[in-house]
Amino acid sequence: MTRLKMGMIGGGLGSFIGDVHRKAAGLDGMISLVCGAFSSTEEKSIASAKAIGIPKSRAYGSYQQMIKAEAKLPEDERMDFVAIVTPNHMHFPPAKMALEHGFHVICDKPLSLNMEEAIELEKIVQSTGKVFALTHNYTGYPMVKQAKAMIAKGDLGTIRKINVQYLQGWLSSAVEKTDHKQAAWRVDPKRSGIGGALGDIGTHAENLVEYISGIHINELAADLTAFGEGRTLDDDGNILLRFENGAKGTMTFSQIATGEENGLAIKIYGTKGSVDWHQENPNELVVKWLNQPKQTYTPGGNGGYPEASEYVRIPAGHPEGYLEGFATIYRSFAKELNHVKQGNSPSSLPDFPTVQDGVRGMNFIYKAVESSSNNASWVTLKS
Amino acid sequence: MTRLKMGMIGGGLGSFIGDVHRKAAGLDGMISLVCGAFSSTEEKSIASAKAIGIPKSRAYGSYQQMIKAEAKLPEDERMDFVAIVTPNHMHFPPAKMALEHGFHVICDKPLSLNMEEAIELEKIVQSTGKVFALTHNYTGYPMVKQAKAMIAKGDLGTIRKINVQYLQGWLSSAVEKTDHKQAAWRVDPKRSGIGGALGDIGTHAENLVEYISGIHINELAADLTAFGEGRTLDDDGNILLRFENGAKGTMTFSQIATGEENGLAIKIYGTKGSVDWHQENPNELVVKWLNQPKQTYTPGGNGGYPEASEYVRIPAGHPEGYLEGFATIYRSFAKELNHVKQGNSPSSLPDFPTVQDGVRGMNFIYKAVESSSNNASWVTLKS
Amino acid sequence: MTRLKMGMIGGGLGSFIGDVHRKAAGLDGMISLVCGAFSSTEEKSIASAKAIGIPKSRAYGSYQQMIKAEAKLPEDERMDFVAIVTPNHMHFPPAKMALEHGFHVICDKPLSLNMEEAIELEKIVQSTGKVFALTHNYTGYPMVKQAKAMIAKGDLGTIRKINVQYLQGWLSSAVEKTDHKQAAWRVDPKRSGIGGALGDIGTHAENLVEYISGIHINELAADLTAFGEGRTLDDDGNILLRFENGAKGTMTFSQIATGEENGLAIKIYGTKGSVDWHQENPNELVVKWLNQPKQTYTPGGNGGYPEASEYVRIPAGHPEGYLEGFATIYRSFAKELNHVKQGNSPSSLPDFPTVQDGVRGMNFIYKAVESSSNNASWVTLKS
Amino acid sequence: MTRLKMGMIGGGLGSFIGDVHRKAAGLDGMISLVCGAFSSTEEKSIASAKAIGIPKSRAYGSYQQMIKAEAKLPEDERMDFVAIVTPNHMHFPPAKMALEHGFHVICDKPLSLNMEEAIELEKIVQSTGKVFALTHNYTGYPMVKQAKAMIAKGDLGTIRKINVQYLQGWLSSAVEKTDHKQAAWRVDPKRSGIGGALGDIGTHAENLVEYISGIHINELAADLTAFGEGRTLDDDGNILLRFENGAKGTMTFSQIATGEENGLAIKIYGTKGSVDWHQENPNELVVKWLNQPKQTYTPGGNGGYPEASEYVRIPAGHPEGYLEGFATIYRSFAKELNHVKQGNSPSSLPDFPTVQDGVRGMNFIYKAVESSSNNASWVTLKS
Repeated sequence: MTRLKMGMIGGGLGSFIGDVHRKAAGLDGMISLVCGAFSSTEEKSIASAKAIGIPKSRAYGSYQQMIKAEAKLPEDERMDFVAIVTPNHMHFPPAKMALEHGFHVICDKPLSLNMEEAIELEKIVQSTGKVFALTHNYTGYPMVKQAKAMIAKGDLGTIRKINVQYLQGWLSSAVEKTDHKQAAWRVDPKRSGIGGALGDIGTHAENLVEYISGIHINELAADLTAFGEGRTLDDDGNILLRFENGAKGTMTFSQIATGEENGLAIKIYGTKGSVDWHQENPNELVVKWLNQPKQTYTPGGNGGYPEASEYVRIPAGHPEGYLEGFATIYRSFAKELNHVKQGNSPSSLPDFPTVQDGVRGMNFIYKAVESSSNNASWVTLKS
Repeated sequence: MTRLKMGMIGGGLGSFIGDVHRKAAGLDGMISLVCGAFSSTEEKSIASAKAIGIPKSRAYGSYQQMIKAEAKLPEDERMDFVAIVTPNHMHFPPAKMALEHGFHVICDKPLSLNMEEAIELEKIVQSTGKVFALTHNYTGYPMVKQAKAMIAKGDLGTIRKINVQYLQGWLSSAVEKTDHKQAAWRVDPKRSGIGGALGDIGTHAENLVEYISGIHINELAADLTAFGEGRTLDDDGNILLRFENGAKGTMTFSQIATGEENGLAIKIYGTKGSVDWHQENPNELVVKWLNQPKQTYTPGGNGGYPEASEYVRIPAGHPEGYLEGFATIYRSFAKELNHVKQGNSPSSLPDFPTVQDGVRGMNFIYKAVESSSNNASWVTLKS
Repeated sequence: MTRLKMGMIGGGLGSFIGDVHRKAAGLDGMISLVCGAFSSTEEKSIASAKAIGIPKSRAYGSYQQMIKAEAKLPEDERMDFVAIVTPNHMHFPPAKMALEHGFHVICDKPLSLNMEEAIELEKIVQSTGKVFALTHNYTGYPMVKQAKAMIAKGDLGTIRKINVQYLQGWLSSAVEKTDHKQAAWRVDPKRSGIGGALGDIGTHAENLVEYISGIHINELAADLTAFGEGRTLDDDGNILLRFENGAKGTMTFSQIATGEENGLAIKIYGTKGSVDWHQENPNELVVKWLNQPKQTYTPGGNGGYPEASEYVRIPAGHPEGYLEGFATIYRSFAKELNHVKQGNSPSSLPDFPTVQDGVRGMNFIYKAVESSSNNASWVTLKS
Repeated sequence: MTRLKMGMIGGGLGSFIGDVHRKAAGLDGMISLVCGAFSSTEEKSIASAKAIGIPKSRAYGSYQQMIKAEAKLPEDERMDFVAIVTPNHMHFPPAKMALEHGFHVICDKPLSLNMEEAIELEKIVQSTGKVFALTHNYTGYPMVKQAKAMIAKGDLGTIRKINVQYLQGWLSSAVEKTDHKQAAWRVDPKRSGIGGALGDIGTHAENLVEYISGIHINELAADLTAFGEGRTLDDDGNILLRFENGAKGTMTFSQIATGEENGLAIKIYGTKGSVDWHQENPNELVVKWLNQPKQTYTPGGNGGYPEASEYVRIPAGHPEGYLEGFATIYRSFAKELNHVKQGNSPSSLPDFPTVQDGVRGMNFIYKAVESSSNNASWVTLKS
């Protein structure tokens, strides 16, 4: 097996998400980080490279520089793909350039700064024929896969009700006014786009709902609020949902839910049964039935479907966490790349979030903001 | 101590809630059941009376008969108050008659079949000066009292977000078409009024939210659905909430949430901390803080406020349940009756849900139905 | 239905367990408290009687006085049975006298102050033919009944391993040196007997293990400790267990387990499955299987056996607690009394803990103390 | 930063623990796998090497071959240390040879096949001055570190009671008679040594108890059982513990606890508070206090000590699991290696389990077997 070669854009020293991407990419031994434009200056980029064992020669001062230089390297040396781990406003430009220079792309969410970029990016992916993955990492948990498989097989019957929450408390106080890098860009429309918590975590919730249930949101009515003094972007939102199959639901998300850490949780109710999953305790899937006692499924445990078990790395009872779920996205991305490198066409339904999912996410942001601007009136998601 | 004498309207053999009221009323040794119009015929009423040890002479064939007969008994023999445990359409008539004949009333929720009755009942309570309690029993749990006290004292700071759910699954299938007495009247507008799950459990959620938070709902946007085939009343609902102080929230309730038993749960977020309580595990109150580890409070356990501890009957670690919470409403009602019997005026803020709370609940039902009829448009609760 | 008439011995003002017994006895409407020797002086006894609505004429200054006086009353007036809720040293004398004067007895645990009394009491129960129940109340929980039924039916296969704990922390500090009535007698051998925590809670654990598993402890090796300064009775113990069928196990109990409230919990492992139950969350029984996902049973919920469901008072999801479990002992006792009052012989296997169970418990205390005195050497329980 | 170079002994295709070690070693980017004697034949070893991207030239047919060959490579090319991931009987020989050829060693637990090897290995480590780590990986969890730190600082007061369990069910049926590689060697004394479940998981429990509490076991009385038909090694055990400071406790472990996955859990009670941690939900540490509500600590969450926080890789609420905890052992080992490579002496108290801990573990196995052979009589651990 030859490892795939990854170039990283962003993720310099002190970046939370860059480190996550590196660990996730490396976990299954299918990918090696070989180069990076880690920071906005060459000096900083080299410092970051040094700290993580990348030679100075492969540390670049800008993504443009990196893409051009790497493209000129021999095929067995140059990077195979780029991982984009910058704030939202810096997703589209490097993604576009990388794709157009023949590199595959894996990119943090949301897809882009705005809708126009999202639509253009979808076109570029299609025209270049390159592989593009979006790291909606929560879809990588085995118990999320189990829930998805149970619904797809009809175990729960017809889905009628969905409640999803994504609750955090880290913006409860005005941390963006302190020296808090993460907070600073998230409350800044220039770097985040039109969604605050909506874009940062609401899109994860939207993606998870559609991924597990297999049904699309049809309409929404959103009530977004910026509670933090001086904030222009939402830090909290409550949304009514209507799904294409007639199911109804709610979404609530917040970054001012004091004391919550990373409370992404989902409940989906069908006519025969229901599933209940919480990201902070990701190795349990509670399934409640119409006529049987409720069950708890675990990764690799009794009764799990192969659709879930294949994502389990260690025996039942040995908890896997956030990094492992994230790594599953990278592993599926790597498998697809190997598939394509062997001369195959990209899969039509690859096992990771795609640029189309990213466009759906951007559309969700736009429609939620539109609804909220109109006093939470209903907005249809289909364009 | 002389026990207060209770007459019961409804609650004959096979009634779930009648038995609950009897056990709750008796638990603290302050109330004795002395008579009842348990069923719609004298024969059935006598049979019920016999089964629970009430002499035939005090078993009546109708509430009218009971109220008239009891009113003629000597004071130390006749009932002090009536407990009304019939379906919704039979709340107002006996309540009105009892009050007007000098009896205090404790009544199951919701207050009445419709808004007109509710408003009239409020007037009758005021004009007669009798004590009236509504059994929103979930306010009787010690950890609900603890949460309320913490918010009232400002421990959580300013409240900004509230999520409440009340999820049941017992109407997931068409049980009303089988011989299911409870289901039959709940899906029947003539006996339930204009709210289905909304009236049956949504009002509990509404009452609990306002009780714990101490703030009122200002506006709502409700999306109600009747999923069960042939049902005309909602069996599921999702509601956006806006509170008088600027807080936002969601309510979701359902009786088609397959596998759920009695899932009433509430999360309230303030600027300094938050509370998280679930009725199915009522002896834990989880409190999350801005800067401290989360805590779990228990009835009679360390750190509890007197406002909660006074409702605890047994030492910490000995779970109290639904009946005990329900009994607390009766105990507070009994205390108020003893207070009034000693010649005092009724308390302005008694420690149980009042007719005003009942009117608020009916208003909530009406406004939610109105909103839902208008495609979940916003409706203001204040009239 | 005529209510059975209860006389209480002990349980005056300020008694925790007296109030529990009264509430438990009254809950199901089958028993009325009619008289009591609540305290050691007539004056105090009358004060207690007054507070709970018992007429002065039926408040006695001593149990002797009560038993004699009640025996002279006409049958339809005099008490049917006595409830003994005094400290351990005052169990045997009133029990003996009551039985010998024709009264049935329900008694708090452990059975008596010492082994001699226990054996004599067993004989008196047999010779008088009266009904005797011991309030090992934890056997009254529906999920305990469910676990017992599953094992009895062979659902779990052959039992091989049992771990039981009963952990409290209320004696972590020297509360007996403050004005703490409960603590004072529990650390006093004259009132408690030779077991401290062993007798107070260890016997509950022993009873629960044998009740649920249906198998007896054969041998034990006990390491008892008095951690509290100046204490002569154990406040902590760890015991190795060997069962008659070859199963092995551990028991750990403590009243110095700081921060624990009332942590009685049991895990029983068979060849096919296992059960896991915790008293502080009594409405869940977790069942783990060899080849199926684990299940959670709830009172009145899906899949429960009739052996459990018949003890459920309210629908699934409405938690029942300690008082309800306790009340189940009283209800079963009342049923047996009604059975016997109709001229039947006492049941050979009544549905409540018997004097034989009490003798087993006393034997357990003696053998554990004997083992611990011999440096935790093995002692056989069979005499 | 230059990555340390790892050679692996064992861990070929199909090995569970080999894959765990590779992922754990690689996670933090401080270590690269460069060579391996993955299997007992060169052919199989090469196949394994190929599958994980190791060149054929560095795949060896035996550990002897590898150690000799690597020793001859230039320093900047040859491996820095070996990771030994073979069954127990193959720990000592390669460890000895590697140390004596100048390589550092990280080795799976238990330390060796028998006591003699353990003692000799301790001497070899001392005489060679090389770094030796034992992968008692559960000590790597942040909440284990938090518990240890709280006890070390005296937050819990004097420790008086410890209960530890390690419950698995995977040997409940006779899987060793099927084609189950893991089971086969674990029930075989030639490959496992004299302890079955005792050596496999009991030693983890022993190590964890001493690691968190900071106090040593002084005496034990062990009752070991082989429940599985035909098994000669224990698959279940119950042990009474006495600690050097006077604390008492119990240990129970099993591989026939049907339905349990990987249930390692520990409760430690001090005079001021207690800790409660469960490996299957490793991101919560419950701390119960004498006079305050119980708290739940989380990795990176409020109130955590730096001693725990420094082991947290991602923000609070993003669960880390088994691999991350395991990786922490590797990370600490790598730090120590870098420290030593810079010319420093090995640390006297390195932040990972040492050969001394391994000797303690072997002694624990021997003393438990001795005790059990003498009908669970007390045995002192100090030699």
